Amino acid sequence: MSPLSHHEILLLFISLAVLLGLARFLGEICRKLRQPVVVGEILAGVILGPTILGRFAPELQHHLFPIAEGGLAAVIEGISILAIVLFLLVAGMEVDLSVVWRQGTAALSVGAVGMIVPFGLGALVAATMPGLLGGAGETDSVVFVLFFATALSISALPVVAKILMDLGIYRSDLGMIMVAAAIFNDIVGWIIFAIILGMMGTVKVVAMPIWMVILLTLGFAILMLTVGRWAINRALPWLQAYASWPGGVLGFIAVGTFICAAFTEWIGVHAIFGAFLFGVALGDSKHLRAKTREALDQFISFLFVPLFFATIGLKVDFLANFHFVTVGVVCVVAFVGKVGGCWAGARLCKMPNKESLAIGCGLNARGAMEIILGLLALQAGVIGQELFVALVVMAILTSMLSGPLMEKVLKRQKPMTIAANLSSKQFVSALAAVGKRQVLDEMAAVLSGPAKMPAEEISQAVWLREQLIPTGLSHRVAVPHARIAGLAKPLIALGRSEHGIDFDARDGKPAQLLLMILTSKDDNGAQLQLLADLAHFINNEANVERVLNAAGFTEILAAFSETQGQGHG
Amino acid sequence: MSPLSHHEILLLFISLAVLLGLARFLGEICRKLRQPVVVGEILAGVILGPTILGRFAPELQHHLFPIAEGGLAAVIEGISILAIVLFLLVAGMEVDLSVVWRQGTAALSVGAVGMIVPFGLGALVAATMPGLLGGAGETDSVVFVLFFATALSISALPVVAKILMDLGIYRSDLGMIMVAAAIFNDIVGWIIFAIILGMMGTVKVVAMPIWMVILLTLGFAILMLTVGRWAINRALPWLQAYASWPGGVLGFIAVGTFICAAFTEWIGVHAIFGAFLFGVALGDSKHLRAKTREALDQFISFLFVPLFFATIGLKVDFLANFHFVTVGVVCVVAFVGKVGGCWAGARLCKMPNKESLAIGCGLNARGAMEIILGLLALQAGVIGQELFVALVVMAILTSMLSGPLMEKVLKRQKPMTIAANLSSKQFVSALAAVGKRQVLDEMAAVLSGPAKMPAEEISQAVWLREQLIPTGLSHRVAVPHARIAGLAKPLIALGRSEHGIDFDARDGKPAQLLLMILTSKDDNGAQLQLLADLAHFINNEANVERVLNAAGFTEILAAFSETQGQGHG
Repeated sequence: MSPLSHHEILLLFISLAVLLGLARFLGEICRKLRQPVVVGEILAGVILGPTILGRFAPELQHHLFPIAEGGLAAVIEGISILAIVLFLLVAGMEVDLSVVWRQGTAALSVGAVGMIVPFGLGALVAATMPGLLGGAGETDSVVFVLFFATALSISALPVVAKILMDLGIYRSDLGMIMVAAAIFNDIVGWIIFAIILGMMGTVKVVAMPIWMVILLTLGFAILMLTVGRWAINRALPWLQAYASWPGGVLGFIAVGTFICAAFTEWIGVHAIFGAFLFGVALGDSKHLRAKTREALDQFISFLFVPLFFATIGLKVDFLANFHFVTVGVVCVVAFVGKVGGCWAGARLCKMPNKESLAIGCGLNARGAMEIILGLLALQAGVIGQELFVALVVMAILTSMLSGPLMEKVLKRQKPMTIAANLSSKQFVSALAAVGKRQVLDEMAAVLSGPAKMPAEEISQAVWLREQLIPTGLSHRVAVPHARIAGLAKPLIALGRSEHGIDFDARDGKPAQLLLMILTSKDDNGAQLQLLADLAHFINNEANVERVLNAAGFTEILAAFSETQGQGHG
Repeated sequence: MSPLSHHEILLLFISLAVLLGLARFLGEICRKLRQPVVVGEILAGVILGPTILGRFAPELQHHLFPIAEGGLAAVIEGISILAIVLFLLVAGMEVDLSVVWRQGTAALSVGAVGMIVPFGLGALVAATMPGLLGGAGETDSVVFVLFFATALSISALPVVAKILMDLGIYRSDLGMIMVAAAIFNDIVGWIIFAIILGMMGTVKVVAMPIWMVILLTLGFAILMLTVGRWAINRALPWLQAYASWPGGVLGFIAVGTFICAAFTEWIGVHAIFGAFLFGVALGDSKHLRAKTREALDQFISFLFVPLFFATIGLKVDFLANFHFVTVGVVCVVAFVGKVGGCWAGARLCKMPNKESLAIGCGLNARGAMEIILGLLALQAGVIGQELFVALVVMAILTSMLSGPLMEKVLKRQKPMTIAANLSSKQFVSALAAVGKRQVLDEMAAVLSGPAKMPAEEISQAVWLREQLIPTGLSHRVAVPHARIAGLAKPLIALGRSEHGIDFDARDGKPAQLLLMILTSKDDNGAQLQLLADLAHFINNEANVERVLNAAGFTEILAAFSETQGQGHG
């Protein structure tokens, strides 16, 4: 009676647990190394797919992760398709069209020239030397050339946004121009790509002439961004009033996404295009609550998306299809075209050379979108596995390099956080001292090792600073600190005092949570940033409460990490 | 290359959109009618399945919602299995074992006697007249008798909890005894059922003797509730410290659920048992944040669960298998056994007769759990479709009746809310009047129709009340009110004044948001409850801001509905 046997159900849960578990684990490691999470997720699939597991235990690999036929393969494929559709929904929600209009000509110039140059360069390379790119696959060469040109000309909005936030320049003029240009690239790139897919016969469910596909694609896009946007904006408050909340809205979003996905799948431009446009129309509504947005984002980004990227590695043998020349050509053409194009677009608007170069480096990130584009082209037979692997490598490389390159060009760095500088070795769960001077000695002793200087000297420096202005803050927190010559990185000691020690706080309360912060004499910014982070943290008294009641260092670190995460978005 | 054709992908999105859309829509209607949401969700499947759509358009029905074979059928089945596993995870998270211990003997007596009586009665009926229940299916009669006895002896914890919250007695002694008894029933019922499944050959992936299955089932349950619970409680703060949040925790929960599901599927007692136990162990951890809990709950309850219950209707023809005698017997035996058993258990602990009867009526709800139990038994061949339909009807009936019956026995009602009494016809977007007396006239005019009395009389009554103590509250809200003889239900007029009208508020601010509330002279409670609801609402000034800035009535209703939802859980 059931289309799935018990054996297949058992395998389904094992496969999902292994795929998701490894993808999340490697994703977290990448995050710790400050690299794109998607790299770890794809790596999980590469390890569990034909590239590695299939080489050593091909039978086990086929058994656990079938991709070609059978009920289990269909379920894994179905989940992976759902995942990518939901991912494009979330990606669409991040697109704010009004940003593009507000930024005006500079954004349009960077966006347009930044697309045209890599598009032209890509088309030239694909048309004159398709052999270097692994050949045009089963498809005709016009489609191949158009695809390659498009693939080189997109930017990854989420990666760009993340880099700008990390550098603290998201809200600056430069940041907004880059975001606007990336949004422009996203929309135009997807529409061109949808049309390319429509030009192929293989993806179609019903036969229809190309002009009809183009008409329907453009018509649908325009409809969604006007009438659809208006209708969703009207529907949301109505739903919030009459249906359960936020569940009713979640259901509405899912149903709307599936309907749009079905429509674009039907006209032959792939389900994800509809989901993306629904996301754009939805994300624009001021009635969409932050809570709904966040719930969707968390669930999709951490459960569905890792599964999707991991399944990519199951489909392709990355080692067998890694061709050095193809990878090299793709990377060089991609770098030159995009960085050059964006730089030229910015220079055209008379922006300074340094900023123009920074814009190019930042927008060079291709991210997850490139990989999805490549996968669809691979499945539609537009490109071969070699070029797909090269595109994945290029997407990862550009994403990894765009942040550091921008930092280098602009000479900016991430702000310091308390959480990043805490260590269990510099933690005193219950301070013994009861006087101010004694407690400084006690905490200085903890820092003496890592600071490579005697505790007395540290204590003395902090004591002198304390004489100028007392460092008792509100909510029972004190932050004795000093600048120390020759310190390689900031050092923080964290201690708790049960009875409290008077640090002359304005609210008169004795300090129970003490942070001793040492920074280098040369590094002005670090101290300010750490104090700002701490101020943000203790702004909410519940945070202090949590640290004082925590059972151990891990819980304290959790408290600081979470607040920091919420603070910087 | 792909196990799903484009045609199947298209159908997948259409099927999901139609199933989820109809299930959510009918679910919301049930909620409005204050009936269990699951009724609407199952009804959606009945409409789209063989019962209705299949009768009129069998080809379309098979095409859109295949259940027997093919890639699409496998994907829908796979999603439905994932959904039920996630549902049991959430159900398990609601189980708080410590409640059972705290309530002591009363809870154990109600729980145990309340299971033994219906179990015995059910076994008696199933053993002596199996024909009335549609026969023992393909299985041996001992398993059939055991299953039927177990099916009658469970209670639906979520339904019971919801009824208690609606009546406002969740935290009372009576409420806590009922919750504890329902938890006891849940755990014991599931373990017995898992063992019954283990006794069947059909569900097994590997062959193993029954004693081994029982040993593994009990061993796994004990392990999860001790070591597993401890390990999860240790893992959560570590994850919150070192992984992204809440995404890292979500991933951990999903992977843990899938591993436990795979294990119980492997020993032959179905994947959901493992998910349920993981949920119990997880829900107990004090480190599980409300935010994670809520995100999981919303996503699963509003996207996965409706899909699962809707697919049930796709599998069974509810009309063809509706046998009046079977349904009648099942319902009578279920009511008598459970209400009687719980009543007896409570009386044994010397509880008063009225409370004992109320406990019986409340715990009689079988809810979604009964339907899941029945479906698994149906799929395992333990029961036939007739008995399955009867169990579904019984589950729905008991769930619908338990709330009203308890209310009747205890003579309690839901508290009144502002949101439930607002109407667009009694809304004045911008009040014209500038004086206190004039604005009362203006608002009274709006209520004159529904109150069936002249506006002057209303205005005068409110004016007199206003003379006693002015009704200006904080944050620019005033609530002029009066009791009117012979009013069938409370009436509220809502008006906004741009310039504000002085209602002698303590903070001195003029009122811009005015609610005129009329209640019946006899109904003391309604006025107090409405004022309490309003006080709760304006406690947060942002709520007032939202109403004052709302573009129309719908947005205002949304503001009141949401706050109310959050206030009463």
